[in-house]
Amino acid sequence: MTRFDTPHAFEAALGALPPPDTPSRTAAALRQESLTKPPGSLGRLEEIAVFLAGWQARARPRLDRGRMVVFAGNHGVAARGVSAFPSSVTAQMVANFAAGGAAINALARAAGLDLHVVPLDLDRPTADIVTAPAMSEAECLAALNAGAASVAPEDDLLVLGEMGIANSTAAAALCAASFGGTACDWTGPGTGVTGPAFDAKVAAVDAALALHARHCGSPFETLRRLGGREIAAIAGAVVAARLAHVPVLLDGFICGSAVAPLAAAQPGITGHCLAGHCSAERGHRRLLDHLGLLPLLALDMRLGEGSGAAVAAGIVRAALAAHDGMATFAEAGVAGD
Amino acid sequence: MTRFDTPHAFEAALGALPPPDTPSRTAAALRQESLTKPPGSLGRLEEIAVFLAGWQARARPRLDRGRMVVFAGNHGVAARGVSAFPSSVTAQMVANFAAGGAAINALARAAGLDLHVVPLDLDRPTADIVTAPAMSEAECLAALNAGAASVAPEDDLLVLGEMGIANSTAAAALCAASFGGTACDWTGPGTGVTGPAFDAKVAAVDAALALHARHCGSPFETLRRLGGREIAAIAGAVVAARLAHVPVLLDGFICGSAVAPLAAAQPGITGHCLAGHCSAERGHRRLLDHLGLLPLLALDMRLGEGSGAAVAAGIVRAALAAHDGMATFAEAGVAGD
Repeated sequence: MTRFDTPHAFEAALGALPPPDTPSRTAAALRQESLTKPPGSLGRLEEIAVFLAGWQARARPRLDRGRMVVFAGNHGVAARGVSAFPSSVTAQMVANFAAGGAAINALARAAGLDLHVVPLDLDRPTADIVTAPAMSEAECLAALNAGAASVAPEDDLLVLGEMGIANSTAAAALCAASFGGTACDWTGPGTGVTGPAFDAKVAAVDAALALHARHCGSPFETLRRLGGREIAAIAGAVVAARLAHVPVLLDGFICGSAVAPLAAAQPGITGHCLAGHCSAERGHRRLLDHLGLLPLLALDMRLGEGSGAAVAAGIVRAALAAHDGMATFAEAGVAGD
Repeated sequence: MTRFDTPHAFEAALGALPPPDTPSRTAAALRQESLTKPPGSLGRLEEIAVFLAGWQARARPRLDRGRMVVFAGNHGVAARGVSAFPSSVTAQMVANFAAGGAAINALARAAGLDLHVVPLDLDRPTADIVTAPAMSEAECLAALNAGAASVAPEDDLLVLGEMGIANSTAAAALCAASFGGTACDWTGPGTGVTGPAFDAKVAAVDAALALHARHCGSPFETLRRLGGREIAAIAGAVVAARLAHVPVLLDGFICGSAVAPLAAAQPGITGHCLAGHCSAERGHRRLLDHLGLLPLLALDMRLGEGSGAAVAAGIVRAALAAHDGMATFAEAGVAGD
């Protein structure tokens, strides 16, 4: 199991990312050309199959073990009234996850994913990013490692999600620190804030950037200062998954913001990632462009929890069903081109 | 079972379309507001659940019986070299469907749909639309009724697809006759024609429009002159499904073109329809705009067979899983707004 003992170990992993398995990719691409359909006519389903072949190192990739992990954390900045919900809702929703009543329970079940929920010190919110770094070095490392520990090398796909009241405030700050732009460019309504609460959210992002941006010299430091425990955990899981050759399916804006500092330093980090969807949250489309990811879905979802990624897992399943289940022109006796 | 004995009976049905069940829609919308998520945060998944509630007349709609029907037909215009494949491939692909080796077999299975394939007189192609109406009145009625006969009132969703070498030529002509525009606006590569074959395709659409457009005074006449058996069958199935209150999930450009003459006369005909996807075929986005349908997916697919709709059925399933499986704020003890 991957463990990052120091910030340097995390940065070093980012600098030595393994590539996909080329022979498996090539074999999968050749198989796609031989199936009973005009070449390329299944569009992105074909790309997904070839992508998974490379990262699973299997010409016939599979989705028998799909692991969905939802990390939860609390944020000091929530006290500034930047969310439509109080911080107590994070723990209430984690209890709802445990009881099986949340959207992600229903959607993960429908997609045949094995759901794991990882609450991270919910009774200890991160520090308010307007006035201090969100986490100490030890806290950020612990969160990265909680993410890394959720990666099982035998899994076929890792589907990531998050829950954390006020985490779209942290996400906006992470995006701006990673890719430039103003607080306004990256701040959206999140769970649905408008008016004064939205203004407070933009002001918090602005203030956090003013305090921290010039100190964000590395992905670790950016995550530590502006992120949160669930966000750092996602970053740790994405890097650990890459080291374990496990492809990743990302959820929405918060999930993507966890990868933003990594991608700003090392664009190749998204090579083993699929973007499940483009959410309704302002800034997500721009973020996906910066990450070099084309989303599978755009259904105006903006819930988080991994909900968009769970729905997108059904697309991945369809891609593999076609790749594995179809006959070749030779097998079917159909005239190819 | 719906049966159209005359062209007039078909037109009359179009003029008396039943509406969805308002109490069921309202109850479903209220349920969505009570579930443990910010209102609206599941985006189109919420809309789908409410849509199905209205057409199934159930506050908790279901997808236990999802019927996928793929109609197949042959086209006289294929002899003009407008497709990348010969007409014989239609029957070969129908055999491939029967053997279970096509994309639609794999995708319908993955989506939990019950697949029915309906070949329509494959040994009797329609007449070449460049020189004559595609079908006689009796032939067109028979095709409409083959479609209507495929509707089972007890089904929860009807998913439609098609197979027919050269049918994107007929589809382009149907769209232009229904919504205006030139052959160039509506003609795309279909299975992948380029160069002289593509030019021949555009010329065939142009010539067919020149011959028939002024005679296309009714949806029936447009379908009869420019359509094909599988296309008329889709039109018959869509109308019969509406009469039976069965919601419909449409596939790509050809499927949509079957509805085009109906929608030009009676825009409400798409009220019980979902568009599974926007395909890569030129003209499909424009067609969806005319039909007033927002596609669920846009995955650059362009195979037909119902493949895009089958993948989209997974989105419908996710929508229903959330609608039915989630806890309310009251049940979960989560603080709503």
